[in-house]
Amino acid sequence: MKTAILSVGTELLFGQIVNTNAVFLSKELNNMGFDVMYHHTVGDNPGRLASMITSTIEDVDMILVTGGLGPTQDDLTKEVACNVFEDELIINEKILDQISEYFVRTGRNMTENNAKQALVPSRATVFHNDAGTAPGFALEKDGKYIICMPGPPREMTHMFEISVKPFLEKMSDGFMRYKLLRLYGIGESLLETKLLDIIDGQTDPTVATYAKEGECQLRIASKRSSAEEADKAVQDMVDVISERVGEYIFSYDNEELVDVVGRMLLEKKLTIASAESCTGGLFAAALTDIPGISQTFKAGFVTYSNEAKVRELGVNEETLAKYGAVSEETAKEMVEGLAKVTGCDVCVSVTGIAGPGGGTEEKPVGLVYIGFKYGDKCFVTKKLGAGASRKWIRNHTLLGILDIVRRNI
Amino acid sequence: MKTAILSVGTELLFGQIVNTNAVFLSKELNNMGFDVMYHHTVGDNPGRLASMITSTIEDVDMILVTGGLGPTQDDLTKEVACNVFEDELIINEKILDQISEYFVRTGRNMTENNAKQALVPSRATVFHNDAGTAPGFALEKDGKYIICMPGPPREMTHMFEISVKPFLEKMSDGFMRYKLLRLYGIGESLLETKLLDIIDGQTDPTVATYAKEGECQLRIASKRSSAEEADKAVQDMVDVISERVGEYIFSYDNEELVDVVGRMLLEKKLTIASAESCTGGLFAAALTDIPGISQTFKAGFVTYSNEAKVRELGVNEETLAKYGAVSEETAKEMVEGLAKVTGCDVCVSVTGIAGPGGGTEEKPVGLVYIGFKYGDKCFVTKKLGAGASRKWIRNHTLLGILDIVRRNI
Repeated sequence: MKTAILSVGTELLFGQIVNTNAVFLSKELNNMGFDVMYHHTVGDNPGRLASMITSTIEDVDMILVTGGLGPTQDDLTKEVACNVFEDELIINEKILDQISEYFVRTGRNMTENNAKQALVPSRATVFHNDAGTAPGFALEKDGKYIICMPGPPREMTHMFEISVKPFLEKMSDGFMRYKLLRLYGIGESLLETKLLDIIDGQTDPTVATYAKEGECQLRIASKRSSAEEADKAVQDMVDVISERVGEYIFSYDNEELVDVVGRMLLEKKLTIASAESCTGGLFAAALTDIPGISQTFKAGFVTYSNEAKVRELGVNEETLAKYGAVSEETAKEMVEGLAKVTGCDVCVSVTGIAGPGGGTEEKPVGLVYIGFKYGDKCFVTKKLGAGASRKWIRNHTLLGILDIVRRNI
Repeated sequence: MKTAILSVGTELLFGQIVNTNAVFLSKELNNMGFDVMYHHTVGDNPGRLASMITSTIEDVDMILVTGGLGPTQDDLTKEVACNVFEDELIINEKILDQISEYFVRTGRNMTENNAKQALVPSRATVFHNDAGTAPGFALEKDGKYIICMPGPPREMTHMFEISVKPFLEKMSDGFMRYKLLRLYGIGESLLETKLLDIIDGQTDPTVATYAKEGECQLRIASKRSSAEEADKAVQDMVDVISERVGEYIFSYDNEELVDVVGRMLLEKKLTIASAESCTGGLFAAALTDIPGISQTFKAGFVTYSNEAKVRELGVNEETLAKYGAVSEETAKEMVEGLAKVTGCDVCVSVTGIAGPGGGTEEKPVGLVYIGFKYGDKCFVTKKLGAGASRKWIRNHTLLGILDIVRRNI
């Protein structure tokens, strides 16, 4: 089924906000097996909105519209959609009650504008808005559909999950199921090579690879006549892939690497501490973004200067003089010192040259040493991210540290 | 002048990447006084691309296209633009030389595909690509323009700044100049109230306020018959605004607060250290994102546990027992201990409840204490971000710390 995503809002045309709604809906629709042919954005102008809907619906089977459903005079999506799809707006008493309740619950006064939000097209399937006041709806004419949702991402994503997705699933001819696997430590081309026969021979399930900022993703999707069949087809393929490249897969469920590592530490009841130089606290900041992490993360050091490495971690001054701050020896003494100072179960250290300055022929920008200690296991890993930017090197080093923790606890 | 932004690329329709090009161009065009009427996205399909350009150009004076200029068979923007604007592609020898040089410089082999990139419309104004191989161009027909740029954001923004912006400035009737002021510590509504007479009475310069994740922005723009006049009109207005709300303005030139603080520290040759609890290293990570910051940032502590606060910073166990880890007293002892341990000129400490758990009636989620010490100046500031998410609290606390440093060094 061919679809288009239409975003309504002048603030998008000013570049004030990023269109995350289009990204979210594109992912969801593609994952459900719909084809997304266009993204369009127009301002709060009824004439341009009407001609955009009219011309787009000639080309596709369904338009998903976000925005322009609010209570102000600018919000005209409902009226325009109604005109183009030849319907009329009527008061929906149930929604009117829900909006009144919403205002009582939040202790605010309901204005006449808000009552206008209870107007919906007479033939529409109405979607209740649990996160706000503007209802959404789906309207059909001659086998073509327009689906209207509120613009605020929180309201839109909530309505999509609760109401629109089930509505679309019913429309779809068959049951689409998919899994998103995430991998670290293998490049996209090597991954494709290892799975070439699967990718080349695919019909259903389909297997697609994506590269994304230092990691790879695998999307495995199947469309069958029952949900159970589709689930089984996906799982069977996941098992095959897991046998070939399982060591690189850190999530079978589209999780971030830091969340996986945080959960593992919490489940295993291990404490952790970090000593960072080139990443400057990125590891600690990423880990402490997880609620409840204080159960496992106890202390971090950002030993940016040599003095701090000596003072806080007990790194030998001779080691720094002989091998330099960016060296296997320093990374080792950092992680050993960290374990001694904090007594944590798991300790990580990192020292490197993030650039753009500070590189030499012997020790170029991008050279990074990661130290790891857990019980008797203690080692240093060398990484080289040649030719990359400061941001890239820091972010990839963060992923590198996290993956070492994941593989060794 | 009415414009539309057209992004070409199937990966956008898959939701794999966010359309930052449209955001960047929208901001730039609006700032230069152009009206952005539409954003469109189409996949790598010549038929749909052609009809999109054909229908859009009826409605606007200029289309800015990004993407589809690469060397592969998918890249068809040039051919399609040429067809719609009735021109033909010819080899541009200068570009061919530049592409060959690029391959020599980067030590790679040039393929026939790459030579195809030297083809440009015969009537076009050509824009050289300093950051890649695909050239951009502007093509005119019957007073309407199409401007094509490469898709990768780094190449596109570079080409826009170097070549497209000057080209557009010449097209514009008059000279547009603007400044983006950034403010912290004042809400958008209070800011509007303080500038109400200016905003209400505005014709030229125009003054617009935006709220953005804990800060406010003010855009002051003027369009005059000469650049000097426009510059002066903007500067005069900036002076008036500066007199009213100057204390909140951290940048007159659209800089990030962390970059402003980093620059101030480097200029004043001050060393700094941090002791973070609830922000978990965010401050250190943000500051160390700045190249060359090792001159000023010496050491950071992420004292997430009470033990770490006592061990690393010398916080009294009785203080923790009596007042708790999240208290004015603890924040004060943290910053004093930090100064003693590191000897840095400027020291900051932070302790708070980032949530979602851990809050009480007396000490709710969002309660944060920030300690600051510089010479004899030593104080603790209390902040309360009630009802907010963990991410919001952590990010706003980071801005709060940075602003305290900015105001006190």
